[in-house]
Amino acid sequence: MKLKHIIKSQQFSVPSIMELFATAQQMEKVVARGGTQDYNSKIMASLFYEPSTRTRFSFETAMHRLGGRILSTENAKEFSSAISGESIEDTIKVLSQFVDVIVLRHDEIGGAERAAAVSNVPVINAGDGKGGQHPTQALTDLYTIFREIKTIDGLNIALVGDLAHGRTVRSLAYLLSKFERVKIFFVAPDKLQIHQDILDHLEENKVWFAQENDLKKVVAEVDVVYQTRIEKILLEVSDNDYEKIMESFFINSGMMKKMKSNSIVMHPLPRLKEISSEVDTDSRAAYFRQSQNGIYVRMALLKTVLDA
Amino acid sequence: MKLKHIIKSQQFSVPSIMELFATAQQMEKVVARGGTQDYNSKIMASLFYEPSTRTRFSFETAMHRLGGRILSTENAKEFSSAISGESIEDTIKVLSQFVDVIVLRHDEIGGAERAAAVSNVPVINAGDGKGGQHPTQALTDLYTIFREIKTIDGLNIALVGDLAHGRTVRSLAYLLSKFERVKIFFVAPDKLQIHQDILDHLEENKVWFAQENDLKKVVAEVDVVYQTRIEKILLEVSDNDYEKIMESFFINSGMMKKMKSNSIVMHPLPRLKEISSEVDTDSRAAYFRQSQNGIYVRMALLKTVLDA
Amino acid sequence: MKLKHIIKSQQFSVPSIMELFATAQQMEKVVARGGTQDYNSKIMASLFYEPSTRTRFSFETAMHRLGGRILSTENAKEFSSAISGESIEDTIKVLSQFVDVIVLRHDEIGGAERAAAVSNVPVINAGDGKGGQHPTQALTDLYTIFREIKTIDGLNIALVGDLAHGRTVRSLAYLLSKFERVKIFFVAPDKLQIHQDILDHLEENKVWFAQENDLKKVVAEVDVVYQTRIEKILLEVSDNDYEKIMESFFINSGMMKKMKSNSIVMHPLPRLKEISSEVDTDSRAAYFRQSQNGIYVRMALLKTVLDA
Repeated sequence: MKLKHIIKSQQFSVPSIMELFATAQQMEKVVARGGTQDYNSKIMASLFYEPSTRTRFSFETAMHRLGGRILSTENAKEFSSAISGESIEDTIKVLSQFVDVIVLRHDEIGGAERAAAVSNVPVINAGDGKGGQHPTQALTDLYTIFREIKTIDGLNIALVGDLAHGRTVRSLAYLLSKFERVKIFFVAPDKLQIHQDILDHLEENKVWFAQENDLKKVVAEVDVVYQTRIEKILLEVSDNDYEKIMESFFINSGMMKKMKSNSIVMHPLPRLKEISSEVDTDSRAAYFRQSQNGIYVRMALLKTVLDA
Repeated sequence: MKLKHIIKSQQFSVPSIMELFATAQQMEKVVARGGTQDYNSKIMASLFYEPSTRTRFSFETAMHRLGGRILSTENAKEFSSAISGESIEDTIKVLSQFVDVIVLRHDEIGGAERAAAVSNVPVINAGDGKGGQHPTQALTDLYTIFREIKTIDGLNIALVGDLAHGRTVRSLAYLLSKFERVKIFFVAPDKLQIHQDILDHLEENKVWFAQENDLKKVVAEVDVVYQTRIEKILLEVSDNDYEKIMESFFINSGMMKKMKSNSIVMHPLPRLKEISSEVDTDSRAAYFRQSQNGIYVRMALLKTVLDA
Repeated sequence: MKLKHIIKSQQFSVPSIMELFATAQQMEKVVARGGTQDYNSKIMASLFYEPSTRTRFSFETAMHRLGGRILSTENAKEFSSAISGESIEDTIKVLSQFVDVIVLRHDEIGGAERAAAVSNVPVINAGDGKGGQHPTQALTDLYTIFREIKTIDGLNIALVGDLAHGRTVRSLAYLLSKFERVKIFFVAPDKLQIHQDILDHLEENKVWFAQENDLKKVVAEVDVVYQTRIEKILLEVSDNDYEKIMESFFINSGMMKKMKSNSIVMHPLPRLKEISSEVDTDSRAAYFRQSQNGIYVRMALLKTVLDA
């Protein structure tokens, strides 16, 4: 697989995804053996225009496990436009002379694409703006389903929570649409349902979907519950009403009893109260394995672009 | 010595302290030879919920001298609870999948203990809250006394300054109480004297102590003067009264003349005016050697938990 | 060449500059071969009292390409004086026990000199205060002229823009004055012309110079146009007048047509509108090569002080 830049989920075909997942599985073994020093002359820049310590640490761990080196800032606005007035293009032209790969978290939709257009080295999009893309998270999510259930084809998947604002869920829906006989249930309060553009995309690709507003209605028939956060403020309701609405979405041991024995619960983290901590010890709780998988998928992506 | 987590001074016995100090002395030799690359596949996370660049740099230097790798943030509140509402437990569960050891500076007492309870990898407490613990600093202090005077047993030690708020002094008092025939003088303005819990602990352990409010009264008979900062604001006095009070605590060449020739002056740094810079060239001024010892003690602690 | 500290441009003689440039050219080859691991036991501290991500990344890239290790903070005020009241001297005494070289960006003129006076390890000045020095930038600029035109002697050089506040231009003028038959044109609005101290220095050293307020008057006869930023706010004019004034200084393809075919355009970056992006593809546009040269020059400086 030849990849120069990693900008959005749509750029991946099913065969390239499967090749990437094979590399990710190799990476699990590399980490189990204590990592490699193969890339010890390579430098990755973490260029974050807004702080996201978890995502940054995931990429930096991946690069370290490959033996590589790191430049890091969560203060990139100072480097660039906000203070100096410099364009993202100039910033990237300079930085891409210094390092071997750039991991970019930008605060505007399309930032990663603009960066890739002028960069001498691979650019990996680590999130660009609210409602933009976060392809390495979506690939991590898909890899987790694949690792846990051994297939994507034919699965019933509930995407739950704030589907209107969640970058992750949108990117994942794009990826799922590439597979066979997938059924997607969008489970959200009306105010926070998935946007029409995603539904249009699914219809075009002949993917079965339904919209629901209570997880309990579908939980027994799905293979994957993908939970996300619901910010109370977005619902514009009282505390009492919030608790009541949340009864339809919260995952606790009662909800787990309704789930199939070979299903899994996922969450991109961080979580608030939408998954009770009593669920953590259930073997179907896959969300911490999911964050660990992020290391392997990001190692595979870094290896792919550095080898290209 | 098997150590999983390093949370508080009390967890160390005299034999384990002596074993650690032997390792620290080996580490001095390792650094003199240019460090080792033995731990080049290991990753340490510096997870600081409040900035403490000096402590962070000391740990990161120690890890580098062992050949290791580093993830670093002084912005951990963003990672975790303050903004995202995530619990410290979830943060640590995720991060302990990424790295091999976590150095944690938390802003609440007990933060390190909560982290250790859920971590897959060793957690080292680099300070948890005002009035909490800072065990690696206390071990560094004790190691300095041991390196300078070759013994802890039988020493007379003056702990000076703000004893009410100083995390360091409290942790050091716990460690000193484990040794034989130690005499401790607590020298502080009345408002900033040591708290009763420490005195109770010393009485239980039959450690001799006295309380004083003028360093000049005891300086001639002690082996160690451990100076700390007194923030003027805590005394609630005028500028004039502050200068007057400080005459009883400040260390200048006049005070040094009263000290024994084989005694030492320590300070956890940073200092304000409580030790005059004219003292720096006196061979008994041990405070810069003390900060250097922090590297060796932290290397010994990292080696111990990574080897366990 | 024996160098302990790198504090200001004036400390370099022409032979030491040429020795440094020879090392920088070796470093180009080292980077082309994938860097070296020779300095993998060495630690560089980036101690920045004010953020300057571009300069920090340039130094950290240089250290990584040498195989070295990095401690990094853009938050050094917390480490030191502003919050803790600690002197820069105490900070450096402690830090120079930890690491092998300190790269210091201080916010006061003379900060680097004070640091060097007490440091056990080399201190490299990465900028000290507005109107202070930034010698590694000036050496990078000079190296770029040397690399592009093969000589410094006998060149006609236009220094353009805000010459009153630019640290870079002042440092470069000092360096240029050491060479033979150099002619310098200071091209700036009257309010932002070069200060008298630099002119006095040039007269003492018998360097030819002239002052102009329109780049178009001299652009056809110079070998180097060194462009810098002009902040509108410093001119205290209306938007209309600003645009009008800028016509005398802006570099676009029209201005490039007037330039000699073997001349070059430089800029320390970041730029605003003072060089149009349409100029970027002109082979005489040397400003991105200039920022890349910063890596080689800083590698050469780090190697020189670490080997001394």
